[in-house]
Amino acid sequence: MREPKVYIALLHYPVLNKEGRTIASSITNLDLHDIARLARTYRVKRYYVVQPLKDQRRLVEELLEYWQKGKGRVYNPDRQEALKVLKVVPALSVAEREVVQEAGEVLFVATDARKDYANLTFAEARSLAQTGKPLFLLFGTAWGLAPKIIAKCPFVLEPIPGRDNYNHLSVRSAVAIILDRLLGEPWWKLCKEV
Amino acid sequence: MREPKVYIALLHYPVLNKEGRTIASSITNLDLHDIARLARTYRVKRYYVVQPLKDQRRLVEELLEYWQKGKGRVYNPDRQEALKVLKVVPALSVAEREVVQEAGEVLFVATDARKDYANLTFAEARSLAQTGKPLFLLFGTAWGLAPKIIAKCPFVLEPIPGRDNYNHLSVRSAVAIILDRLLGEPWWKLCKEV
Repeated sequence: MREPKVYIALLHYPVLNKEGRTIASSITNLDLHDIARLARTYRVKRYYVVQPLKDQRRLVEELLEYWQKGKGRVYNPDRQEALKVLKVVPALSVAEREVVQEAGEVLFVATDARKDYANLTFAEARSLAQTGKPLFLLFGTAWGLAPKIIAKCPFVLEPIPGRDNYNHLSVRSAVAIILDRLLGEPWWKLCKEV
Repeated sequence: MREPKVYIALLHYPVLNKEGRTIASSITNLDLHDIARLARTYRVKRYYVVQPLKDQRRLVEELLEYWQKGKGRVYNPDRQEALKVLKVVPALSVAEREVVQEAGEVLFVATDARKDYANLTFAEARSLAQTGKPLFLLFGTAWGLAPKIIAKCPFVLEPIPGRDNYNHLSVRSAVAIILDRLLGEPWWKLCKEV
Protein backbone atom coordinates (compact mmCIF):
# COMPACT_ATOMS: atom_id res chain seq x y z
CA MET A 1 0.00 0.00 0.00
CA ARG A 2 1.53 3.29 -1.13
CA GLU A 3 0.65 6.84 -0.20
CA PRO A 4 -2.06 7.93 -2.66
CA LYS A 5 -1.26 10.76 -5.09
CA VAL A 6 -4.62 12.25 -5.84
CA TYR A 7 -5.25 15.49 -7.73
CA ILE A 8 -8.73 16.91 -8.16
CA ALA A 9 -10.28 19.44 -10.50
CA LEU A 10 -13.60 21.24 -10.33
CA LEU A 11 -14.64 22.10 -13.87
CA HIS A 12 -16.70 25.15 -14.80
CA TYR A 13 -16.25 24.24 -18.47
CA PRO A 14 -17.18 22.12 -20.33
CA VAL A 15 -20.22 21.25 -18.21
CA LEU A 16 -23.89 20.75 -18.96
CA ASN A 17 -26.76 23.04 -18.14
CA LYS A 18 -30.25 21.90 -17.21
CA GLU A 19 -31.15 21.53 -20.89
CA GLY A 20 -28.08 19.38 -21.58
CA ARG A 21 -26.17 22.08 -23.50
CA THR A 22 -22.47 22.68 -22.89
CA ILE A 23 -21.80 25.87 -20.93
CA ALA A 24 -19.25 27.65 -18.76
CA SER A 25 -20.63 27.99 -15.23
CA SER A 26 -19.95 30.63 -12.58
CA ILE A 27 -17.80 30.31 -9.49
CA THR A 28 -19.58 29.40 -6.23
CA ASN A 29 -17.72 30.80 -3.26
CA LEU A 30 -18.32 27.82 -0.98
CA ASP A 31 -16.99 25.40 -3.63
CA LEU A 32 -13.63 27.04 -3.11
CA HIS A 33 -13.60 26.86 0.69
CA ASP A 34 -15.38 23.56 1.28
CA ILE A 35 -13.43 21.61 -1.32
CA ALA A 36 -10.08 23.16 -0.36
CA ARG A 37 -10.73 22.13 3.25
CA LEU A 38 -11.64 18.62 2.09
CA ALA A 39 -8.54 18.44 -0.11
CA ARG A 40 -6.36 19.46 2.82
CA THR A 41 -8.07 16.99 5.17
CA TYR A 42 -7.58 14.05 2.80
CA ARG A 43 -4.11 15.15 1.67
CA VAL A 44 -5.04 15.75 -1.96
CA LYS A 45 -1.98 17.02 -3.85
CA ARG A 46 -3.72 19.93 -5.56
CA TYR A 47 -7.22 21.24 -6.09
CA TYR A 48 -7.59 22.86 -9.51
CA VAL A 49 -10.48 25.17 -10.22
CA VAL A 50 -10.93 25.16 -14.00
CA GLN A 51 -12.54 28.39 -15.15
CA PRO A 52 -12.14 29.71 -18.72
CA LEU A 53 -13.75 33.10 -17.98
CA LYS A 54 -11.10 35.65 -17.09
CA ASP A 55 -13.31 37.84 -14.86
CA GLN A 56 -14.38 34.78 -12.95
CA ARG A 57 -10.77 33.67 -12.45
CA ARG A 58 -10.02 37.16 -11.17
CA LEU A 59 -12.74 36.71 -8.53
CA VAL A 60 -11.04 33.55 -7.30
CA GLU A 61 -7.66 35.24 -7.23
CA GLU A 62 -9.05 38.12 -5.19
CA LEU A 63 -10.53 35.67 -2.73
CA LEU A 64 -7.23 33.81 -2.45
CA GLU A 65 -5.43 37.11 -1.94
CA TYR A 66 -7.83 38.09 0.85
CA TRP A 67 -7.44 34.82 2.74
CA GLN A 68 -3.74 34.41 2.12
CA LYS A 69 -2.36 37.90 2.43
CA GLY A 70 -5.24 40.14 3.52
CA LYS A 71 -7.35 40.31 6.65
CA GLY A 72 -8.62 36.76 6.24
CA ARG A 73 -5.20 35.35 7.05
CA VAL A 74 -5.33 36.83 10.53
CA TYR A 75 -9.05 36.22 11.01
CA ASN A 76 -8.92 32.53 10.17
CA PRO A 77 -5.52 30.92 9.52
CA ASP A 78 -7.17 27.50 8.94
CA ARG A 79 -8.72 28.83 5.74
CA GLN A 80 -5.39 30.23 4.62
CA GLU A 81 -3.86 26.81 5.19
CA ALA A 82 -6.61 25.05 3.21
CA LEU A 83 -6.58 27.48 0.28
CA LYS A 84 -2.87 26.87 -0.35
CA VAL A 85 -3.93 23.67 -2.12
CA LEU A 86 -6.21 25.56 -4.55
CA LYS A 87 -5.09 26.81 -7.95
CA VAL A 88 -7.25 28.42 -10.60
CA VAL A 89 -6.48 27.60 -14.24
CA PRO A 90 -8.15 28.54 -17.55
CA ALA A 91 -8.31 24.97 -18.91
CA LEU A 92 -7.95 21.38 -17.81
CA SER A 93 -4.99 20.98 -20.21
CA VAL A 94 -3.03 23.55 -18.17
CA ALA A 95 -3.64 21.58 -14.98
CA GLU A 96 -2.80 18.33 -16.76
CA ARG A 97 0.58 19.67 -17.94
CA GLU A 98 1.46 20.73 -14.41
CA VAL A 99 0.45 17.43 -12.86
CA VAL A 100 2.33 15.37 -15.44
CA GLN A 101 5.41 17.49 -14.87
CA GLU A 102 5.14 17.01 -11.12
CA ALA A 103 4.05 13.38 -10.90
CA GLY A 104 4.44 11.76 -14.33
CA GLU A 105 1.65 10.08 -16.30
CA VAL A 106 -1.68 10.52 -14.58
CA LEU A 107 -4.89 8.46 -14.73
CA PHE A 108 -8.01 10.53 -15.29
CA VAL A 109 -11.08 9.47 -13.31
CA ALA A 110 -14.32 11.23 -14.20
CA THR A 111 -17.21 11.41 -11.77
CA ASP A 112 -20.83 11.45 -12.85
CA ALA A 113 -24.18 11.18 -11.09
CA ARG A 114 -25.52 8.92 -13.85
CA LYS A 115 -24.61 5.26 -14.27
CA ASP A 116 -24.24 5.45 -18.07
CA TYR A 117 -20.46 5.68 -18.29
CA ALA A 118 -19.41 4.13 -14.96
CA ASN A 119 -16.64 1.52 -15.18
CA LEU A 120 -14.97 1.78 -11.76
CA THR A 121 -16.41 0.82 -8.37
CA PHE A 122 -15.49 2.72 -5.20
CA ALA A 123 -13.55 -0.31 -3.95
CA GLU A 124 -11.56 -0.42 -7.21
CA ALA A 125 -10.89 3.31 -7.09
CA ARG A 126 -9.61 2.99 -3.53
CA SER A 127 -7.27 0.15 -4.57
CA LEU A 128 -6.10 2.19 -7.53
CA ALA A 129 -5.28 5.14 -5.26
CA GLN A 130 -3.30 2.81 -2.99
CA THR A 131 -1.02 1.75 -5.82
CA GLY A 132 0.48 5.24 -5.55
CA LYS A 133 -0.18 5.95 -9.25
CA PRO A 134 -1.17 9.57 -9.72
CA LEU A 135 -4.94 9.92 -10.12
CA PHE A 136 -6.72 13.00 -11.39
CA LEU A 137 -10.36 13.09 -10.28
CA LEU A 138 -12.66 15.38 -12.26
CA PHE A 139 -15.84 16.91 -10.87
CA GLY A 140 -18.36 18.96 -12.82
CA THR A 141 -20.32 21.99 -11.63
CA ALA A 142 -23.84 22.80 -12.91
CA TRP A 143 -25.49 19.62 -14.33
CA GLY A 144 -22.22 17.70 -14.53
CA LEU A 145 -19.24 17.09 -16.82
CA ALA A 146 -19.86 17.29 -20.56
CA PRO A 147 -19.69 13.90 -22.35
CA LYS A 148 -16.61 14.97 -24.31
CA ILE A 149 -14.62 15.29 -21.07
CA ILE A 150 -15.94 11.99 -19.75
CA ALA A 151 -14.96 10.30 -23.03
CA LYS A 152 -11.39 11.48 -22.51
CA CYS A 153 -11.12 9.61 -19.19
CA PRO A 154 -10.17 5.91 -19.06
CA PHE A 155 -12.05 5.62 -15.77
CA VAL A 156 -15.48 6.80 -14.73
CA LEU A 157 -16.39 6.31 -11.09
CA GLU A 158 -19.75 4.77 -10.21
CA PRO A 159 -22.32 7.23 -8.82
CA ILE A 160 -23.14 7.51 -5.10
CA PRO A 161 -26.38 5.55 -4.83
CA GLY A 162 -27.79 6.87 -1.53
CA ARG A 163 -30.84 5.04 -0.16
CA ASP A 164 -33.39 6.32 -2.57
CA ASN A 165 -33.99 7.16 -6.19
CA TYR A 166 -33.25 10.80 -5.38
CA ASN A 167 -29.91 11.48 -7.01
CA HIS A 168 -29.12 15.18 -6.78
CA LEU A 169 -26.28 15.83 -4.36
CA SER A 170 -24.39 19.10 -4.57
CA VAL A 171 -20.90 18.82 -6.05
CA ARG A 172 -19.53 19.80 -2.62
CA SER A 173 -21.27 16.83 -1.00
CA ALA A 174 -20.15 14.50 -3.79
CA VAL A 175 -16.51 15.54 -3.38
CA ALA A 176 -16.77 15.00 0.40
CA ILE A 177 -18.20 11.50 0.07
CA ILE A 178 -15.92 10.42 -2.78
CA LEU A 179 -12.71 11.61 -1.07
CA ASP A 180 -13.79 9.92 2.14
CA ARG A 181 -14.48 6.63 0.35
CA LEU A 182 -11.20 6.72 -1.58
CA LEU A 183 -8.89 8.19 1.03
CA GLY A 184 -10.58 7.97 4.43
CA GLU A 185 -9.32 5.68 7.18
CA PRO A 186 -10.93 2.20 6.94
CA TRP A 187 -13.46 2.85 9.71
CA TRP A 188 -15.67 0.08 8.23
CA LYS A 189 -13.23 -2.62 9.31
CA LEU A 190 -14.92 -2.46 12.72
CA CYS A 191 -18.37 -3.10 11.19
CA LYS A 192 -19.92 -6.44 12.07
CA GLU A 193 -22.47 -6.06 9.33
CA VAL A 194 -23.00 -9.09 7.07
CA MET B 1 -31.29 -5.15 10.17
CA ARG B 2 -34.09 -2.59 10.33
CA GLU B 3 -34.67 0.53 8.27
CA PRO B 4 -32.81 3.34 10.08
CA LYS B 5 -34.87 6.18 11.55
CA VAL B 6 -32.46 9.08 11.58
CA TYR B 7 -33.33 12.70 12.30
CA ILE B 8 -30.76 15.48 12.03
CA ALA B 9 -30.54 19.02 13.36
CA LEU B 10 -28.24 21.85 12.39
CA LEU B 11 -27.89 24.11 15.41
CA HIS B 12 -27.31 27.86 15.19
CA TYR B 13 -27.61 28.04 18.98
CA PRO B 14 -26.01 27.19 21.34
CA VAL B 15 -22.75 27.02 19.40
CA LEU B 16 -19.26 28.32 20.03
CA ASN B 17 -17.52 31.20 18.31
CA LYS B 18 -13.81 31.37 17.55
CA GLU B 19 -13.10 32.56 21.09
CA GLY B 20 -15.07 29.69 22.64
CA ARG B 21 -18.02 31.81 23.73
CA THR B 22 -21.61 30.64 23.24
CA ILE B 23 -23.39 32.48 20.44
CA ALA B 24 -26.28 32.29 17.98
CA SER B 25 -24.91 32.04 14.43
CA SER B 26 -26.44 33.21 11.15
CA ILE B 27 -28.04 31.09 8.47
CA THR B 28 -25.82 30.02 5.54
CA ASN B 29 -27.89 29.53 2.42
CA LEU B 30 -25.98 26.49 1.15
CA ASP B 31 -26.37 24.71 4.50
CA LEU B 32 -30.07 24.60 3.73
CA HIS B 33 -29.77 23.22 0.19
CA ASP B 34 -26.76 20.94 0.54
CA ILE B 35 -27.91 19.29 3.75
CA ALA B 36 -31.54 18.96 2.58
CA ARG B 37 -30.28 17.20 -0.57
CA LEU B 38 -28.10 14.92 1.58
CA ALA B 39 -31.00 14.19 3.93
CA ARG B 40 -33.21 13.27 0.98
CA THR B 41 -30.48 11.10 -0.59
CA TYR B 42 -29.88 9.11 2.61
CA ARG B 43 -33.57 9.00 3.58
CA VAL B 44 -33.22 11.03 6.76
CA LYS B 45 -36.66 11.47 8.36
CA ARG B 46 -36.37 15.21 8.96
CA TYR B 47 -33.74 17.93 8.82
CA TYR B 48 -34.32 20.54 11.52
CA VAL B 49 -32.66 23.92 11.27
CA VAL B 50 -32.52 25.28 14.82
CA GLN B 51 -32.42 29.07 14.80
CA PRO B 52 -33.58 31.15 17.79
CA LEU B 53 -33.46 34.50 15.93
CA LYS B 54 -36.85 35.31 14.45
CA ASP B 55 -35.58 37.38 11.52
CA GLN B 56 -33.22 34.61 10.58
CA ARG B 57 -36.02 32.03 10.71
CA ARG B 58 -38.03 34.31 8.45
CA LEU B 59 -35.19 34.20 5.89
CA VAL B 60 -35.37 30.41 5.84
CA GLU B 61 -39.13 30.48 5.48
CA GLU B 62 -38.88 32.88 2.54
CA LEU B 63 -36.38 30.61 0.87
CA LEU B 64 -38.60 27.56 1.42
CA GLU B 65 -41.55 29.51 0.02
CA TYR B 66 -39.57 30.44 -3.10
CA TRP B 67 -38.47 26.88 -3.84
CA GLN B 68 -41.73 25.23 -2.87
CA LYS B 69 -44.38 27.56 -4.16
CA GLY B 70 -42.61 30.31 -6.10
CA LYS B 71 -40.53 30.35 -9.26
CA GLY B 72 -37.97 27.93 -7.84
CA ARG B 73 -40.45 25.09 -7.93
CA VAL B 74 -40.69 25.33 -11.70
CA TYR B 75 -37.03 26.17 -12.22
CA ASN B 76 -35.71 23.22 -10.24
CA PRO B 77 -38.18 20.65 -8.89
CA ASP B 78 -35.34 18.58 -7.37
CA ARG B 79 -34.69 21.35 -4.87
CA GLN B 80 -38.37 21.54 -4.03
CA GLU B 81 -38.32 17.81 -3.39
CA ALA B 82 -35.23 18.04 -1.14
CA LEU B 83 -36.44 21.02 0.86
CA LYS B 84 -39.63 19.18 1.91
CA VAL B 85 -37.47 17.43 4.54
CA LEU B 86 -36.34 20.75 6.07
CA LYS B 87 -38.10 22.42 8.98
CA VAL B 88 -36.96 25.50 10.82
CA VAL B 89 -37.58 25.64 14.59
CA PRO B 90 -36.67 28.15 17.31
CA ALA B 91 -35.16 25.60 19.71
CA LEU B 92 -33.97 22.00 19.82
CA SER B 93 -36.65 21.22 22.41
CA VAL B 94 -39.34 21.99 19.83
CA ALA B 95 -37.76 19.55 17.37
CA GLU B 96 -37.33 16.97 20.13
CA ARG B 97 -41.03 17.12 21.07
CA GLU B 98 -42.03 16.57 17.44
CA VAL B 99 -39.65 13.65 16.94
CA VAL B 100 -40.71 11.93 20.16
CA GLN B 101 -44.34 12.32 19.16
CA GLU B 102 -43.64 10.84 15.74
CA ALA B 103 -41.16 8.10 16.60
CA GLY B 104 -41.08 7.62 20.38
CA GLU B 105 -38.01 7.94 22.59
CA VAL B 106 -35.03 9.13 20.59
CA LEU B 107 -31.28 8.71 21.16
CA PHE B 108 -29.32 11.94 20.83
CA VAL B 109 -25.96 11.65 19.07
CA ALA B 110 -23.78 14.76 19.15
CA THR B 111 -21.04 15.35 16.58
CA ASP B 112 -17.84 17.20 17.35
CA ALA B 113 -14.55 17.77 15.54
CA ARG B 114 -12.59 17.24 18.78
CA LYS B 115 -11.97 13.87 20.39
CA ASP B 116 -12.67 15.08 23.94
CA TYR B 117 -16.20 13.79 24.34
CA ALA B 118 -16.31 11.00 21.73
CA ASN B 119 -17.78 7.69 22.93
CA LEU B 120 -19.17 6.15 19.74
CA THR B 121 -17.25 4.86 16.71
CA PHE B 122 -18.63 5.13 13.19
CA ALA B 123 -19.08 1.35 13.10
CA GLU B 124 -21.07 1.46 16.35
CA ALA B 125 -23.18 4.37 15.10
CA ARG B 126 -23.97 2.43 11.92
CA SER B 127 -25.03 -0.62 13.97
CA LEU B 128 -27.13 1.58 16.22
CA ALA B 129 -28.91 3.07 13.20
CA GLN B 130 -29.61 -0.44 11.91
CA THR B 131 -31.47 -1.40 15.08
CA GLY B 132 -34.23 0.90 13.82
CA LYS B 133 -34.17 2.93 17.07
CA PRO B 134 -34.78 6.59 16.31
CA LEU B 135 -31.51 8.55 16.35
CA PHE B 136 -31.23 12.31 16.45
CA LEU B 137 -27.87 13.52 15.12
CA LEU B 138 -26.84 17.04 16.12
CA PHE B 139 -24.48 19.22 14.10
CA GLY B 140 -23.15 22.61 15.14
CA THR B 141 -22.52 25.64 12.93
CA ALA B 142 -19.70 28.16 13.64
CA TRP B 143 -17.01 26.56 15.86
CA GLY B 144 -19.23 23.65 16.89
CA LEU B 145 -21.84 22.62 19.44
CA ALA B 146 -21.63 24.22 22.88
CA PRO B 147 -20.54 21.80 25.64
CA LYS B 148 -23.90 22.09 27.39
CA ILE B 149 -25.62 20.53 24.36
CA ILE B 150 -22.99 17.81 24.04
CA ALA B 151 -23.42 17.00 27.74
CA LYS B 152 -27.13 16.38 27.13
CA CYS B 153 -26.36 13.63 24.59
CA PRO B 154 -25.73 10.02 25.70
CA PHE B 155 -23.67 9.52 22.54
CA VAL B 156 -20.95 11.62 20.94
CA LEU B 157 -19.67 10.41 17.58
CA GLU B 158 -15.93 10.18 17.01
CA PRO B 159 -14.51 12.92 14.74
CA ILE B 160 -13.60 12.32 11.08
CA PRO B 161 -9.84 11.87 11.20
CA GLY B 162 -8.89 12.54 7.57
CA ARG B 163 -5.27 11.80 6.63
CA ASP B 164 -3.64 14.70 8.33
CA ASN B 165 -3.65 16.80 11.47
CA TYR B 166 -5.76 19.37 9.59
CA ASN B 167 -9.18 19.09 11.17
CA HIS B 168 -11.41 21.87 9.85
CA LEU B 169 -14.09 20.52 7.56
CA SER B 170 -17.15 22.62 6.86
CA VAL B 171 -20.30 21.42 8.60
CA ARG B 172 -21.72 20.64 5.14
CA SER B 173 -18.82 18.27 4.41
CA ALA B 174 -19.07 16.69 7.86
CA VAL B 175 -22.79 15.98 7.39
CA ALA B 176 -22.07 14.44 3.96
CA ILE B 177 -19.37 12.12 5.28
CA ILE B 178 -21.20 11.16 8.47
CA LEU B 179 -24.49 10.34 6.70
CA ASP B 180 -22.60 8.31 4.10
CA ARG B 181 -20.76 6.33 6.78
CA LEU B 182 -23.90 5.68 8.82
CA LEU B 183 -26.43 5.18 6.04
CA GLY B 184 -24.58 4.62 2.77
CA GLU B 185 -24.60 1.28 0.96
CA PRO B 186 -21.73 -0.98 2.18
CA TRP B 187 -19.49 -0.26 -0.83
CA TRP B 188 -16.47 -1.29 1.28
CA LYS B 189 -17.54 -4.94 1.27
CA LEU B 190 -15.81 -5.16 -2.11
CA CYS B 191 -12.52 -3.83 -0.71
CA LYS B 192 -9.69 -6.33 -0.61
CA GLU B 193 -7.69 -4.10 1.70
CA VAL B 194 -6.17 -5.78 4.74
